Amino acid sequence: MFAKLAAEFIGTFWLVLGGCGSAVLAAAFPEVGIGLLGVSLAFGLTVLTGVYALGPISGGHFNPAVSVGLWAGGRFPGSQLILYILAQVAGGVVGAAALYLIASGKADFTLTAGFASNGYGEHSPGGYSLTAALVSEVIMTFMFLVVILGATHRRAPVGFAGLAIGFALTLIHLISIPVTNTSVNPARSTGPALFVGDWAISQLWLFWLAPFIGAMLAGVVYKSLLEGDREEPPITGRMTS
Amino acid sequence: MFAKLAAEFIGTFWLVLGGCGSAVLAAAFPEVGIGLLGVSLAFGLTVLTGVYALGPISGGHFNPAVSVGLWAGGRFPGSQLILYILAQVAGGVVGAAALYLIASGKADFTLTAGFASNGYGEHSPGGYSLTAALVSEVIMTFMFLVVILGATHRRAPVGFAGLAIGFALTLIHLISIPVTNTSVNPARSTGPALFVGDWAISQLWLFWLAPFIGAMLAGVVYKSLLEGDREEPPITGRMTS
Amino acid sequence: MFAKLAAEFIGTFWLVLGGCGSAVLAAAFPEVGIGLLGVSLAFGLTVLTGVYALGPISGGHFNPAVSVGLWAGGRFPGSQLILYILAQVAGGVVGAAALYLIASGKADFTLTAGFASNGYGEHSPGGYSLTAALVSEVIMTFMFLVVILGATHRRAPVGFAGLAIGFALTLIHLISIPVTNTSVNPARSTGPALFVGDWAISQLWLFWLAPFIGAMLAGVVYKSLLEGDREEPPITGRMTS
Amino acid sequence: MFAKLAAEFIGTFWLVLGGCGSAVLAAAFPEVGIGLLGVSLAFGLTVLTGVYALGPISGGHFNPAVSVGLWAGGRFPGSQLILYILAQVAGGVVGAAALYLIASGKADFTLTAGFASNGYGEHSPGGYSLTAALVSEVIMTFMFLVVILGATHRRAPVGFAGLAIGFALTLIHLISIPVTNTSVNPARSTGPALFVGDWAISQLWLFWLAPFIGAMLAGVVYKSLLEGDREEPPITGRMTS
Repeated sequence: MFAKLAAEFIGTFWLVLGGCGSAVLAAAFPEVGIGLLGVSLAFGLTVLTGVYALGPISGGHFNPAVSVGLWAGGRFPGSQLILYILAQVAGGVVGAAALYLIASGKADFTLTAGFASNGYGEHSPGGYSLTAALVSEVIMTFMFLVVILGATHRRAPVGFAGLAIGFALTLIHLISIPVTNTSVNPARSTGPALFVGDWAISQLWLFWLAPFIGAMLAGVVYKSLLEGDREEPPITGRMTS
Repeated sequence: MFAKLAAEFIGTFWLVLGGCGSAVLAAAFPEVGIGLLGVSLAFGLTVLTGVYALGPISGGHFNPAVSVGLWAGGRFPGSQLILYILAQVAGGVVGAAALYLIASGKADFTLTAGFASNGYGEHSPGGYSLTAALVSEVIMTFMFLVVILGATHRRAPVGFAGLAIGFALTLIHLISIPVTNTSVNPARSTGPALFVGDWAISQLWLFWLAPFIGAMLAGVVYKSLLEGDREEPPITGRMTS
Repeated sequence: MFAKLAAEFIGTFWLVLGGCGSAVLAAAFPEVGIGLLGVSLAFGLTVLTGVYALGPISGGHFNPAVSVGLWAGGRFPGSQLILYILAQVAGGVVGAAALYLIASGKADFTLTAGFASNGYGEHSPGGYSLTAALVSEVIMTFMFLVVILGATHRRAPVGFAGLAIGFALTLIHLISIPVTNTSVNPARSTGPALFVGDWAISQLWLFWLAPFIGAMLAGVVYKSLLEGDREEPPITGRMTS
Repeated sequence: MFAKLAAEFIGTFWLVLGGCGSAVLAAAFPEVGIGLLGVSLAFGLTVLTGVYALGPISGGHFNPAVSVGLWAGGRFPGSQLILYILAQVAGGVVGAAALYLIASGKADFTLTAGFASNGYGEHSPGGYSLTAALVSEVIMTFMFLVVILGATHRRAPVGFAGLAIGFALTLIHLISIPVTNTSVNPARSTGPALFVGDWAISQLWLFWLAPFIGAMLAGVVYKSLLEGDREEPPITGRMTS
């Protein structure tokens, strides 16, 4: 169990350091900055690389909502849920601390730029309302879990799950950074929020609530979808026979 | 059959919400917007992730032209064609509705920017003519189906179809967004058009007709290509022996 | 044999239409254009998708230099070389024609912008000399063939060749578009040059000569490298034991 | 052994020519330049393509820190360490020379722009301090080796290591180019530094020391992590059972 928790800690550390790091350090670099496209790619690649590196040890969740959704879908034991979430949150906080250590090595660094925190209303990057933020985070997490549950199902081709899941997170960021800076992951939201404090803490509830709702919905829907499909023969990884 | 239709509904919902969503919400975000490159990547990743997640259930078409092309190529039963297309169109419309719900959470949102609808002539992003639009959509759908028919053929390496097909859609958008905003998918065109109404509805015929022509051509050509190849021994997934 | 030649024709058609098409239609689209990064991705994805779609039929060369390099490396029969090259050049020319048909549907289209032709000296995008162009094309084609020969070798993991080869072409464009607009493929250079005429035709010799030199060098070097390695046991696709 | 060293030479040559080449030639190309995102992708793709092409011969290290980390993790024999490092440094220097040959074919080329050298303090692209540079290079190399050790472990799905490792290097560049121009590879740093001389040479120590520290830490941590996991049954490449 220690190895599993260490793997979840390292993977979530990597997700926050890498994803938020690309946003804080490189997104708006003068003239050649990576923009929201680069940040989206970075978030996805933290998970893609983490799944291949650490997935064989812990399953590669790196996200409390993923653990909850897998539990709701009958793929993860509830007995390990709390420990996994604690390891993930710890990794997210230490990832944010490592980023702070690096980012503050630049003379004009300031936390008031947001430190890649998630937010809604006046703290949404594009000024989107609380309702839009809630809908976006629920749907995005729902679809993230659908991809995870589907790509790791025994019917899916072996080995490709890391690609599908990592690129799903990239896609989710390509869509929704303007709305909430994209969370779908309470541990990712908590790390930077602890450094920014203030509004980032007071808006943090949404980035625990909405991902949990979306993930649990996905677990239940996906499971019932496949139970309704019980009588048909298994299909290979190919799209058509 | 219900599970298959639900999978097609969810996958097409994801394609329209994700692809059009990235265009509406993030493409032109000030200074760090994802541009047409980010939108192209997003469209492709909706299909890449959808194929790995839902392909084992429904085959992962998410597109009436794909279902038609697979039917023309002898890979999909005609008896399921109408139900698949209905599920896909429903998914596309609900995907556009979800996008509307999120996008309208920003104060200055307006549908007059086009809501990622497809168009030609004065409604082509780059001002391309009806003829250019027709040629582009026919050829792009033709090549999309060639990739789908080839990558899912029993000769192709197992498991890679989702990557090839998703990245084919990214490529098609990298080429042809300036011409028609890229459809190659009648369900994707129908969703946003219902919200924009007016010109988007009156130009919708092209985005049903051209993809169907391209897809059927591909089905027929690919099938006859392999029949002419009948006597040669099968080749593995490797490029050379 | 007809199926093989048809596959090479379609694949090279796709390479020129897709790669050059992204450059002509979308690279410099106002404000949200895909830039050289998008064009690089497009060229690579034409080959990635073409290899998975058509590779099982013809081997997926789509490039006279690839056929020559595989022949020099002992992987492709010399008896088919001329027919493959003819099919590739025909595909490249028809691909350029299809692009012309689409691109000329915009009112202010003009061939004087270069139509994605390759060039050196004053026709190099960044003003690079003939020597720089020659060195660049030889080295880039050499490395392209090293990747192709290596990734399709029986020691390499099955199925991944299309990814490695497609992304190799993306990489080559990320490096060398400023130098020559990147060829490494005589058929890709010939298509647009026939439409532009003039300087594009008179500089075309370099884009046949340099890729052929690079490809033949790679074939010879890679073969002798593995012969020197003859006595060691085969290694799996994993990087380390 | 000769074949192994030749493969390491060619792979590191490709890494420096391709990665630094994209930065020097294409990153800041007027209006359509590939930016830091394109450079990040290029560095990753040199390794991705190199691993599939040459990994079956030498293991595909292309980086003294990788060889050291694999040795520390018990995956690479110490007896080959010096020879591998020599071949890698030679490849990096010749790669920088080839880039110089091409880049100097443009009239206004100058080495004073940095020639993609790594640096800290006033030679950091974003002006980051020595401490920030040291922390960044240690952590980035640590995580690079965690991905390499994990993705090539016998528990990981076969064949995907090249994708995970290549994209890990892309991710590392997306995060840390602004801090040090990103090294995590002493051979990559040494090549350009020899051409720039002066400050690039005097700061070179950091880009040997920090990657070696990070890599050795990763080797030790990963090995002990899996030893603590010894009693649990092996898990397949899927994320969840």
